[in-house]
Amino acid sequence: MDIPDLTSIRQAATRIEKFVHRTPVLKSDNLNEIAGAEIYFKCENLQKAGAFKSRGAVNAVFSLTDEEINKGVCTHSSGNHAAALARAAKLRNSRAFIVMPENSSKVKVAAVKNYDGIITFCKPTLAERENTLAQVKSMTGSLEIHPYNDYRIIAGQATATVELIEDSGPFDIVMAPVGGGGLLSGTALAASCISPKTEIIAAEPAGADDAFRSFYGGKIFPSVNPETIADGLLTSLGSLTFPIIREYVDRIVTVSEEGIIKAMRLIWERMKIIIEPSSAVPFAAIIEKKFDHSGKKIGIILSGGNIDLEKIPWIKMF
Amino acid sequence: MDIPDLTSIRQAATRIEKFVHRTPVLKSDNLNEIAGAEIYFKCENLQKAGAFKSRGAVNAVFSLTDEEINKGVCTHSSGNHAAALARAAKLRNSRAFIVMPENSSKVKVAAVKNYDGIITFCKPTLAERENTLAQVKSMTGSLEIHPYNDYRIIAGQATATVELIEDSGPFDIVMAPVGGGGLLSGTALAASCISPKTEIIAAEPAGADDAFRSFYGGKIFPSVNPETIADGLLTSLGSLTFPIIREYVDRIVTVSEEGIIKAMRLIWERMKIIIEPSSAVPFAAIIEKKFDHSGKKIGIILSGGNIDLEKIPWIKMF
Repeated sequence: MDIPDLTSIRQAATRIEKFVHRTPVLKSDNLNEIAGAEIYFKCENLQKAGAFKSRGAVNAVFSLTDEEINKGVCTHSSGNHAAALARAAKLRNSRAFIVMPENSSKVKVAAVKNYDGIITFCKPTLAERENTLAQVKSMTGSLEIHPYNDYRIIAGQATATVELIEDSGPFDIVMAPVGGGGLLSGTALAASCISPKTEIIAAEPAGADDAFRSFYGGKIFPSVNPETIADGLLTSLGSLTFPIIREYVDRIVTVSEEGIIKAMRLIWERMKIIIEPSSAVPFAAIIEKKFDHSGKKIGIILSGGNIDLEKIPWIKMF
Repeated sequence: MDIPDLTSIRQAATRIEKFVHRTPVLKSDNLNEIAGAEIYFKCENLQKAGAFKSRGAVNAVFSLTDEEINKGVCTHSSGNHAAALARAAKLRNSRAFIVMPENSSKVKVAAVKNYDGIITFCKPTLAERENTLAQVKSMTGSLEIHPYNDYRIIAGQATATVELIEDSGPFDIVMAPVGGGGLLSGTALAASCISPKTEIIAAEPAGADDAFRSFYGGKIFPSVNPETIADGLLTSLGSLTFPIIREYVDRIVTVSEEGIIKAMRLIWERMKIIIEPSSAVPFAAIIEKKFDHSGKKIGIILSGGNIDLEKIPWIKMF
């Protein structure tokens, strides 16, 4: 498969439509007043398995032939891709082998088990995750579905932006958070096809700013000991996502941890929806005034809503 | 105005449509599995001002003549009606005088102020609230808009159920929580008009079971020292809501505080939306198996999402 174009994004949309939600686009007068802009939130936190990851995973899994899917699929992920892939494999009556670091949150482990994913735990280093995945692959003969460095995944994630622009566009700006870049590259490709004048701005935690450094540095600088509450954005850009981001994204801005928590709380409080910290990163860039957003019409992808409800970041606990 | 019929409910719908959201109806495979039923949640927590109360308040305020609205409106309320009325009055460039008990939560006070409501604080007893409101009325000449004992309010609240049934009906059962009975009587009237075979089941906290006792006792038994986390359901039935509820509601069931908190958490966790405790009461009746819900198609009104995010009931704090 080549870099996704409008045809392959539309094919992905058709392939996945029975298995994912067309999520609502919500807005809030109150947040618009605070922001001084007109913001439309694409609610992928209300997506199946609680994140946009269901789009890419379903697209990848349903792109496989019967012979391929019968082998099962595998990945390493501590997060939303793991649950989304397990769910997609289950929809095709197959199995997903998931390598997860042994310190993964209970909530994420429960989500994978909920979809009958078969988990192998490993030490929480990238090397161990890759080694363990290689073992699992050779033992099971399953096919790896990478969380983001895969054009089928990127085309799937792109469908969220197509829906957002169809339902509420055109926009001056569309924003997404950036981790490995699967969502961001899909967002940028979709917008470039159907709304080429729209500016694409990515937001990233300052404590995990590999995409920011890579984008402006002209080559991939991997994440080194990233630290952020936005646990979906710890990964580094991939060899497929980076070139798309360089070509189609206009800007990457970084935000503080305080900004992420403040933005997250505002969205919970004013919009009455639960988002995980990673989802709050673009709105944090607006309240931290990281670019000229004043008076603009802005679409924001809220990437997911999977958070441990025992650990709310603004509440002091025992 | 007489008891609302389909004509007056439709007129209310037309009157308010520019000023309130047609809120989404959401469902969750996961919760359906837990419940053993097919449940459709009408998300009034995503309504303007965070609750269904916006419907009744806008209908009442926009039913007034120019001369009437110029006098301003008033009410006593510590909750969602206060903010909704302030908002509705502001939409008509008028003023709302709100009597609130001095121990009202900061969040509720802030919501009223946000819509420029003019607050008079009083001691937190019903007698003091009524005395203070009488004073405010005579000083300002404003018109009282009662939170629920008013047919314009009831007709407005009824529009939520019309939308729910139009969008996702017909249902075997429609459920609403019951406090003063404005939402419940509107729900029952709407369903009786457009889906007469649907059973109407109300749910109430056992710690504030005046509607349960009144319904089965055949006369209004007021709330005496009600105690529940569902702070929107502390009030007693009114002289207008009680007869409608007796005639059109099929059952009232009561639920425990533990059930309310469990139901609330499940909805937050699985549906990624924020609801206040009062909203969780009908789903609590399902998970506590208070009636035969198995395999039924059920519509539930999630009444509101206004909660102090510093005080999450399942989190132990300092």
